[in-house]
This record gives sequence, C-alpha cells and structure tokens, in this order.
Amino acid sequence: MMRRLLFASALLVTMQCSAQDIDSATVRSFYDYSLSNGQAYEWLRHLTESIGGRLSGSPQAAQAVSYTKEVLQTLGADTVYLQEVMVPHWVRNNREELTVFSNGKKIPLTICALGGSIATPEKGVRADVIEVKSFDELDALGEAGVKGKIVFFNGPMNQKYVNTFQAYGEAGKYRYSAAKNAAQYGAVATITRSLTLSMDDVPHTGAMGYNDTIKKIPCCAISTMDAEFLSAELKRNPATQAQLVLNCEMLPDVLSYNVVAEIRGSLFPDEVITVGGHLDSWDTGKGAHDDGAGCVQSMELIRMFHDLGIHPKRTVRVVLFMNEENGLRGGTKYAEFAKASSQKYLAAIESDEGGFAPRGFSFSGTAAQERKLRGFAPLFEPYGIYEWVTGGGGADISELGSLGTLMIGLSPDSQRYFDYHHTPIDTFDKVNRRELQLGAAAIASLAYLLANYGIE
Amino acid sequence: MMRRLLFASALLVTMQCSAQDIDSATVRSFYDYSLSNGQAYEWLRHLTESIGGRLSGSPQAAQAVSYTKEVLQTLGADTVYLQEVMVPHWVRNNREELTVFSNGKKIPLTICALGGSIATPEKGVRADVIEVKSFDELDALGEAGVKGKIVFFNGPMNQKYVNTFQAYGEAGKYRYSAAKNAAQYGAVATITRSLTLSMDDVPHTGAMGYNDTIKKIPCCAISTMDAEFLSAELKRNPATQAQLVLNCEMLPDVLSYNVVAEIRGSLFPDEVITVGGHLDSWDTGKGAHDDGAGCVQSMELIRMFHDLGIHPKRTVRVVLFMNEENGLRGGTKYAEFAKASSQKYLAAIESDEGGFAPRGFSFSGTAAQERKLRGFAPLFEPYGIYEWVTGGGGADISELGSLGTLMIGLSPDSQRYFDYHHTPIDTFDKVNRRELQLGAAAIASLAYLLANYGIE
Repeated sequence: MMRRLLFASALLVTMQCSAQDIDSATVRSFYDYSLSNGQAYEWLRHLTESIGGRLSGSPQAAQAVSYTKEVLQTLGADTVYLQEVMVPHWVRNNREELTVFSNGKKIPLTICALGGSIATPEKGVRADVIEVKSFDELDALGEAGVKGKIVFFNGPMNQKYVNTFQAYGEAGKYRYSAAKNAAQYGAVATITRSLTLSMDDVPHTGAMGYNDTIKKIPCCAISTMDAEFLSAELKRNPATQAQLVLNCEMLPDVLSYNVVAEIRGSLFPDEVITVGGHLDSWDTGKGAHDDGAGCVQSMELIRMFHDLGIHPKRTVRVVLFMNEENGLRGGTKYAEFAKASSQKYLAAIESDEGGFAPRGFSFSGTAAQERKLRGFAPLFEPYGIYEWVTGGGGADISELGSLGTLMIGLSPDSQRYFDYHHTPIDTFDKVNRRELQLGAAAIASLAYLLANYGIE
Repeated sequence: MMRRLLFASALLVTMQCSAQDIDSATVRSFYDYSLSNGQAYEWLRHLTESIGGRLSGSPQAAQAVSYTKEVLQTLGADTVYLQEVMVPHWVRNNREELTVFSNGKKIPLTICALGGSIATPEKGVRADVIEVKSFDELDALGEAGVKGKIVFFNGPMNQKYVNTFQAYGEAGKYRYSAAKNAAQYGAVATITRSLTLSMDDVPHTGAMGYNDTIKKIPCCAISTMDAEFLSAELKRNPATQAQLVLNCEMLPDVLSYNVVAEIRGSLFPDEVITVGGHLDSWDTGKGAHDDGAGCVQSMELIRMFHDLGIHPKRTVRVVLFMNEENGLRGGTKYAEFAKASSQKYLAAIESDEGGFAPRGFSFSGTAAQERKLRGFAPLFEPYGIYEWVTGGGGADISELGSLGTLMIGLSPDSQRYFDYHHTPIDTFDKVNRRELQLGAAAIASLAYLLANYGIE
C-alpha cells in the first residue's frame, strides 16, 4: 500500500512538474515571440500615425474599427466580428481660447476644452477669476464668492505616491466635476489645472460630466506651467480676469462598434476569458499609450496563439472596446451581451494603463478567484512582474463584475503615463517597442493560464 | 525567570519593531523628498543642456568637475574635495565618413568612430567589405578571407533577453575587440553594427581596445538600419566596397578629477559606504542617462541626508568618477586611494544603468554580505523594488572588490537604455523626472541602511 501511495505521489509530482514546465515554457514562448517577432508595435504605428486620434463618432474611430478588424481577420482567430454600439459624438471644433487680462496686459494661454463641455457664447465668457485648490475651498467660498466668476481649480496631483494612478484617482474629480460643482454656486465657467505630475506647457483634456439639474457651464484645462502662472498672477492682482471662448458641441449619437476576435476553447468553449483595450482615444493626440497600446497588445494575443499553435481549453475573446473615454458605451454593450448570453464570463483582462514595461496585475474578484490568480505569480517573476494587487481591473470590463467575472488590469510602470495622458503628445514615439511587446506577452501568458486552468 | 525572559523578548520585539518602523519611515522620507522636492533633475538639465557631452580630457569634462563640486559645496556635506587623476584624451575631430560603393552607386552612411580608434590615412581606406556575424565566422574565414578587407561585424543583440544588459554583455565584444581580432588576419578596418535593440538610424560609439602586438586599424559603428542595408547590399553584390575616413586621434593624457563629497559617520567614521556614478560621458551625445543620471542621483543623497537631518553612523562618501568610458582611471585611482587608506570600505553603490525607474539592485560580495543585504529587501517593496540579484556592481567600483567591499549596482528598468546608450540622442529629454528621482531615493535609502547597520 505504501509503495502504491509513494508511486502515486511520485506520479503526481511528476505530472505537476510537467504541467509547470509546460506552463513555464509556454510563457517563455510568448515572451520570445513577442520580443523578437511581435507586430503590435507596427500596428500601433499605423493606428497612431496613419489614422490618428480616434474620438468616438469621428471618422478616425471608424477607420480604426475597419483597420483592426481587417488585421484581426488575417491573424488566425476562429471568428472576427463587430458589435454595434451607439456612441456620443462630441466635437471640439476650431475655437479654444483663454485670454488672461491683468493690469492692462492681455495674455493668451494654451487650453483645451474638457470633453463634453458646452460652447461659450460666440464672443466668449469674460469674468473675474477665483482660484480654489479643492471642492472644500469652493464650498467655503459659496455663492457669495463664486457667482458670476470663472473658477480656477488648481489642485496639483500628489507627487508622493509611487503609483501615479493613485494621484490621478484623487485629483480626477477636479476635471470631471469642476463645472457642475462650480455652477451650483453660479460660476460662469471653469478652468482646471491639467492632471499630470509633469511641469510643462501641455494641456490635458478628458471627460467631464454635467448634472441635469444644474446649469451647464463651459470648462477647459490649462497646462501645469500656465496654472502656476495664473495662480501667481492672481496673487499679484486679485482683479485678474479671463475670457474663455469655446465652440465645441455635442452632435447626435453615431453608430459605431466594438471589434471582437475569438479563439474557441477546445474543451469549454462556453467559458470565456475576455482580453481587451479601448479603440477610441481623445482627439488632441494620437491615442498611443491611451489606448492604442492596449488594443495592439490584445491583437498580438490572437497572432501569438495562432502562430505558436496554442489551443486554449476555454474561449479567449479579444475585444477592442469603443467609447471608453466619454461614455463607456462599448463596455456597457459588451456587458449587456454577456448578461444575455448563456456563456460563462470567467475572467477579463484589460490593458489601459499605457504601453510601458509591465510590473504587475491588479484585480477584483472573490477571495477564491484572487487566491488562484496569485498562484500564477511565480511564472511571471522571470519577466519582472512582481506586483499582484487587489482592487483593479479596467473601465471597459468593470460592468462584468456583477456577473462574477474576475476583473484584471495590466499594471505597467506608471511613472510616465500622465506625462502624455489625453494630450497632443500621446504619440507613437512615446512608446518603446520592447516595453509594449512585454505587455503583449504578459497578457497572452495570463490569458493562456486562465483559459487552461479556469478560475472559480 | 520565565517572566523575565518574556519581558526581555517583548522588549526585543518592541525594539525591533521600532527600528523597523524608523527605517521604514526614513526610507519613506527619502522617497517623499526626492519625488516632491528633488533637485537631481534640474542638476541633470544643467549637466546635459548647458555643459553637454563630457569625454575625459575635454573642456566639458572640466566644466562638469567645477559645476558638480560647486553644487556639492552648497548641499551640507562635511567635506567636498577633488581627487587628481590623469586621464586619456581621445578626440573625434571632424571627419567621420563611410561611403559604400556598389554597382556604380555611391552611398554615404552615418557613422561614428569607436572611442580610441586611430585615424585612417587622410584619403581614407577603401576596400572590399566582408560581413561576419561572430568571431567564430571571422576565425573560419581566416587570413585568406579577411586580408586587405574591411570586416563588417553584423551580430545583432539578442532580443529575447528581458534584461537588455544581458544582450549587451554578449554582443559588447564585437565593439571592443573587432579591430584587434580582424587585424590579426590582415583586415584594414572594421565596421560594427551598433549595440542596440532598436531598429533606427543612430550610430552608437563606445570603447574599443587595441592589442600592442597587433597592427592597429581604424574602426567605426553604423546604425542598425544601415547594418541591415549594408548586409542586404553585400548579398546583392559581394563585390561591394567601402571607404572609411576618420581623423580622430589620441592626445597626451590630461589632469582631471574625481569629485568627492562626504558625510562623516557619527559612530564609525572610518567605515565607508561609497556611492557614485561617472561624470565623463561619450562626446556624441549629452551623457544624460550615461551617466549624468548616476551623478545627480548621488549628489541628491548629500542634499537629502542634510535637509532631512539624517546623521549616518558610518561615513557616506559620494564619488563622481572620471573616465569610466574609456579608461576607468578614476575608479582605479579611487581603489588605489582605498587600498592605501586605513579606512574600511564596507560597501559601494554605483548607479550607471540609466535614470529609469528602479527595479532592484545587483551585487557581488561574500555570501554573508549578500544575505544581510537581502534582509533590507522588504523595506523597498512599497517602492516597486523587487529584484535582488547576485552578480553585479559597477565598473567604477569594481576594483574595490579585492578589498572585500560589497559592490552594488542600482538596476533600473533596462528596456530603453540601449536606445540611447553612447549616441547623440542620450539627451535630457529622454529622462523622466520621477524615474530619476525614484532612483535617487532608492540609493539614499540603501546607503542609509548600510551606514547604520554596516555589512560584514
């Protein structure tokens, strides 16, 4: 009996070793192929340099749908299809001007409208400027201090966080909610300091939201250097005024698409691992890190599974989501599709934190799911991936959470992300080929493990 | 007795916790200060944009000595001084031309002389070109295949290594030893494919070495794109010739300096922790990542210890070494000084792998030293530092090894380093402020721990 037990346990060890060895070799093969033979970087070149910024509803967004669908059709997926989704269609148009008037000087600043802002009247809005660092300061000023003024939100991002997304998480509300919060006290417009840890002259756009019960007022962002200038000017001269001119507008919704490609699972085709990024981007730049990177990394998965002859036990589905930036309609549509489906959505991985060198994964799921996921960690250490952090995922996959899907986000090094985020300088040259391809390998490796072992 | 033991062990736990808490808070204070209030980035701006490339013996190298000494004198060190060292003085001069002749075409390529190369005759060297991928291929060709020819070393760096320094370690010999190895078979010049993992049009210089018993021949590097072109041309037309013109030269040695600043240890002033980078750089670029970054990070240590009121138990000495790139004379001089000294050189940290986000430390010492060093690892995990790897250090501190000094190198993310290494594009704009400052905090933190706990 003892001998039989020993034999059985030796066999088990052998089988375990062997499975581990196979997994380790498979992960290695993804990295080797991605680094030496990857195509993600060249697809990103096309997406950014030939197509460009891809705001929902724009011709470029439509081109990106066609281009990525066509490429995916050549990569060996079992099926490639489009998923219809109506998206908002906000356009920036051609007038974005902020002029500061102080002590007889007239100083033009470079701005961008925040995404979703209404236009000003044609001649603009001119008013006194009042600076606040926080909503608490705004509330303290109240209607007496704010009414009829342009409110300047000048709260800097916190430099001390090592993970820059933590700083963004804290400061993001001064972009998203500035207009509605200031309007409730009668402000006529808002200016927000750009959300970046860099001191430069680049304004950052991004989504803002109105509240239907509060008057809509126009809003814009200025660069961190201009924010410092304006703040200093207000100290020198509290009577400083500004004039804002915007002619952006919201047009009727437009038909657009999520682009989907899948490799059917060999054993459990109705259990799905979703992998994706978002195809839309802000219009001022080229959407290289945000989020062309995540899209081409996801596409690379299809190419690598095919070329390396890897047949996952569960279905791996790549989704290039539309409209993450200003509506999340693509993610919502996909979640509706999932809820109506008889398939089981085990896990979803999103890459939407830039094409930088991967450092880990963040995730939100049940304790059991998270424990099983962490079990894969040793396979990633040879590739510099050490951080497995609870509490994460990605905007596009966030609505899958209610289905019990384990939501996972790729976490690249975050130091440079907000230098480029939502700006004219989010361009192809800011992406390093190897860093991008390392991310593609990390995603493919994790998707392979999830597809083969499942996650309960 | 039992109660006394329990009390003693409770006290010990309290003391240990307390020491850990203090260390953890001190490390935190370095990171907070460096990220929110660091100066390294601004010093690097001056070193690169106002002074520029700083090859040993050049006026810029002398300016860098003066500038860093002056800055260090303002930072609160106990002493700042220069250490004399005679350095080689190689100059590139103004002629670097490589022309490819093939089928009646005459194609000029962008090149750089390898550092230390002799000049060609004034009219240049023109000969058939023979391509090899390795020294094995060179040896197989022998004199019959090589004599009278220009040998083109076209071995690419291996894309598959995750740590790019591993690929550099393998391919570096085709730069350093190309000329002497080819000359022994009668070659008249060499061309080396640039040592980079990027496909671009930027030639990379770097040190090469002659052998006194073998005829010296001129040598240069071409970009990876030009290497691909030349290789293709040789396949189309094996009779392809090239003409190389160089007028670089080696001048007499010049007096230069290591720049030294130290904070005296409060308890063990004669036990020294050395921290440094190298002040010299190649001449074609501005020496931003290589190694202005390591210098300004080391300078930041002095500033942070002073400003944060940190008094190390052992002496912390910052050394900005001269002549790492083409002679290592500064490192050698410092080691001689150490050997002649009655002080004990416990550990040395060098930052010479670029100003990128830190990922770990590599080190060479005794097993006991390495074990103790690894004991500090948990303190660094909140800052994304997970890799503690045996076998490393830095060129400038390498000669301290014979004194029993634990040699440590900061290991930043390596993906982008060889995109810029020894090129005209190693410029200030390639350095991210936060990544640089994170490195400064990592170095100061480790130096503080070594200075307070020693390392046997």
